[in-house]
Amino acid sequence: MDDPSPLAEPGPRSQAATPVAASTSGAAQRVAAVASGLGSPLVDQLRFLVEVDQLKGVLRRSLIADGSRAENTAEHSWHLALSALVLAEHADEPVDLTRVVSMLLVHDLVEVDAGDTYVYDTAAQRTKAAREHAAAERIFGLLPPDQAVRLRAIWEEFEARESAEARFAYALDRLQPVLLNFANDGGPWAERGVRAAQVRDVMAPVADASGALADLVETIICHASAAGWLLGSAGDDA
Amino acid sequence: MDDPSPLAEPGPRSQAATPVAASTSGAAQRVAAVASGLGSPLVDQLRFLVEVDQLKGVLRRSLIADGSRAENTAEHSWHLALSALVLAEHADEPVDLTRVVSMLLVHDLVEVDAGDTYVYDTAAQRTKAAREHAAAERIFGLLPPDQAVRLRAIWEEFEARESAEARFAYALDRLQPVLLNFANDGGPWAERGVRAAQVRDVMAPVADASGALADLVETIICHASAAGWLLGSAGDDA
Repeated sequence: MDDPSPLAEPGPRSQAATPVAASTSGAAQRVAAVASGLGSPLVDQLRFLVEVDQLKGVLRRSLIADGSRAENTAEHSWHLALSALVLAEHADEPVDLTRVVSMLLVHDLVEVDAGDTYVYDTAAQRTKAAREHAAAERIFGLLPPDQAVRLRAIWEEFEARESAEARFAYALDRLQPVLLNFANDGGPWAERGVRAAQVRDVMAPVADASGALADLVETIICHASAAGWLLGSAGDDA
Repeated sequence: MDDPSPLAEPGPRSQAATPVAASTSGAAQRVAAVASGLGSPLVDQLRFLVEVDQLKGVLRRSLIADGSRAENTAEHSWHLALSALVLAEHADEPVDLTRVVSMLLVHDLVEVDAGDTYVYDTAAQRTKAAREHAAAERIFGLLPPDQAVRLRAIWEEFEARESAEARFAYALDRLQPVLLNFANDGGPWAERGVRAAQVRDVMAPVADASGALADLVETIICHASAAGWLLGSAGDDA
């Protein structure tokens, strides 16, 4: 990896004011206002941190493991970052775990504006990239310019899936809802009539990062199919 | 810091079976059962990861920034880990950010069993250490033995607050509910009649890690007091 660590100390910082989108939440504006006397980097950082609190209100399709409610994107992001610490040994290539964890903490920040796009919703998937890039522009743009560039670069690295770190982070992002859906008798798979072949397609990137996790996914798909929580091939469910 | 990084590659692992507490959730047992053919480290890691999903159901006193509901401990942990990435430059001592982030991802795992203990509830604070140590024994004990030791050591480092990393992580854990309470017109402060002096006591450790963040906390306490969201000294509110 040639680019500097996202966690590297920043160089000298421009003090230019960061433009603030009109749609910044009232809570973020109030916290930024009370901190305004404390100087430029801190006030912008607080505005960003309170603004992204909205990720706690973005609901995903998967239920949490006890089935009581839909998972939100903030707690999903925590679960993935913790998974990276625990499952790192299963990455087939050496990975910089700091970079993987940073990626997982920011990988869904764009959902503050763009919302969660269900992986089996092919229509929504077509507009996802444009919506998320506009969101990245606004949300990372709340930060002081040097941090905006560094955190956005981590998010773009995740999206591109070209580094070993991004491939492993992406595999964990694919794996986690499979575990939750299995814990919930198929959950949204069963509800939406998802096919085993669709899950195999969506899960294909797991094998690019970890043979062990790909075996796990295949085991779960087989069990879920046998239990009737995933449909078979197009001809099987007439 | 003399101890090895929590993220270091593990040495050779004992394959001895990990004892599993009777209270492991049904979801964790089911996921572990389906993965049982895939070998010892992975099955224990999955049982742990599904078990700690319960942190998403542990409610804190603070509301999320939009005031719509109580925050849960999983999303709180995400918010803190992200805060560490964003606010690292305000640490007064050099910190290993990887260690700070790891600490924040695991610092509240014990709440799966012990629940959240409100910082201004002095009775509950007295029993907190014993409850949380029992929880640590069970929850970290779900992991393969080498990981159990390493992740528990990070949690204990956080609790001891003797390293620069632990002091900074602890300061962020103190700061975050102050931001949320301010965004919510005092939220649980106002509801429980908390005094400014109590908040200053609870926030004292912030100054051990960051002068800039301590100034921020004091600014917020002054504004919250002026707004009537925090009570004054014992004689002021007769």
